[in-house]
Amino acid sequence: MADLTLYTYDWVPPPPRGYVRDLRVRWALEEAGLPYRVASTPFADRGPAHLAHQPFAQAPWLTDGDLSIFETGAILLHLGGLSTKLMPSDPRSRSDVTEWVFGALNSVEMASLPWTMLKFMGQPGSKFFDDFLALRLKHMEIVLADREWLAGAFSVADILMADVLRVAERFGGLADSPACRAYIARATGRPAFAKARDDQMAHFAAGDKARGV
Amino acid sequence: MADLTLYTYDWVPPPPRGYVRDLRVRWALEEAGLPYRVASTPFADRGPAHLAHQPFAQAPWLTDGDLSIFETGAILLHLGGLSTKLMPSDPRSRSDVTEWVFGALNSVEMASLPWTMLKFMGQPGSKFFDDFLALRLKHMEIVLADREWLAGAFSVADILMADVLRVAERFGGLADSPACRAYIARATGRPAFAKARDDQMAHFAAGDKARGV
Repeated sequence: MADLTLYTYDWVPPPPRGYVRDLRVRWALEEAGLPYRVASTPFADRGPAHLAHQPFAQAPWLTDGDLSIFETGAILLHLGGLSTKLMPSDPRSRSDVTEWVFGALNSVEMASLPWTMLKFMGQPGSKFFDDFLALRLKHMEIVLADREWLAGAFSVADILMADVLRVAERFGGLADSPACRAYIARATGRPAFAKARDDQMAHFAAGDKARGV
Repeated sequence: MADLTLYTYDWVPPPPRGYVRDLRVRWALEEAGLPYRVASTPFADRGPAHLAHQPFAQAPWLTDGDLSIFETGAILLHLGGLSTKLMPSDPRSRSDVTEWVFGALNSVEMASLPWTMLKFMGQPGSKFFDDFLALRLKHMEIVLADREWLAGAFSVADILMADVLRVAERFGGLADSPACRAYIARATGRPAFAKARDDQMAHFAAGDKARGV
């Protein structure tokens, strides 16, 4: 029996709200209908207690009883093992979902994150990273031309891929990628996404209130 | 019963040799003592037959019977399921290995890859990506200060983390990270790493010969 607690920051500045990575975990939990609690860890003070759960001083992490897991990819594979709404149980489907989990994070986000970080931080653009992202998106257009979801049915791989792509879309990176934009619209049109995003926004708004903002 | 074939390029130019990612898969296969074949896919011609196995037109991929898997993270988790020398079979250890597989690829390589790509391509450096890598390495120094391997015993997580770090080391990125350097030395001192690297070098040398180089 799962006993799930999602840990995220107590507060973040407004710009990343709606995009903090606990959203990926909330989204999966809502899709699966798994009961869970949300707990806060201080944004401003990331000491040894934080590092014991997340060694890179980031958020989120998830606990399931006395098991603690960091990295959204690992967390979503764990949740996939708890609900066939997130990952089918047959070995072939699990393999297909797993390769696309890594595809989202290591082939696409590997290119989109440097690109979006430069945009987010107001740094000068870079033709090098523009081209890297464009190459990955070119291949994603081919992949998404003839399929609704990455691995047969909707799965945790789609949660990760859609979340990775919508960050690039936020900064105008998908102008030439209509299949990717349509895929994001399909994925974020799901009620579980809206619930996850609204809950994240409310969580950080409560953090404002606690700070007296 | 596993029936494993590793697909990699028939040839690559000299600079990336010894660092092409099929090395991660060879290393794991050698650690486990699993029988496998190596097959080639044309470096110069990456058409639909290639994309059917690796949708980003990269290498490697692995087949196990009629199952085909891309992304080295997914491939190594699959191999981890075939040998306890690569991943223990109890759920807690598997969870620990899995989070560190993602930690290697998504927390550390996410920072080291942009940094090393700029170096490799002779692009101007970037303080932004210097700082991003330094931040991740600072946390890895803490992690590696008191442990030999990432998840208890040596595992596929160490293959990935050591391979990620040694690429940064190649370009001088670990000058201020002695625990990371010691970890790479421990990992690459294993006979299975040497076999994997030597086999990769021989494979691409055979590609030279076939081209009449």
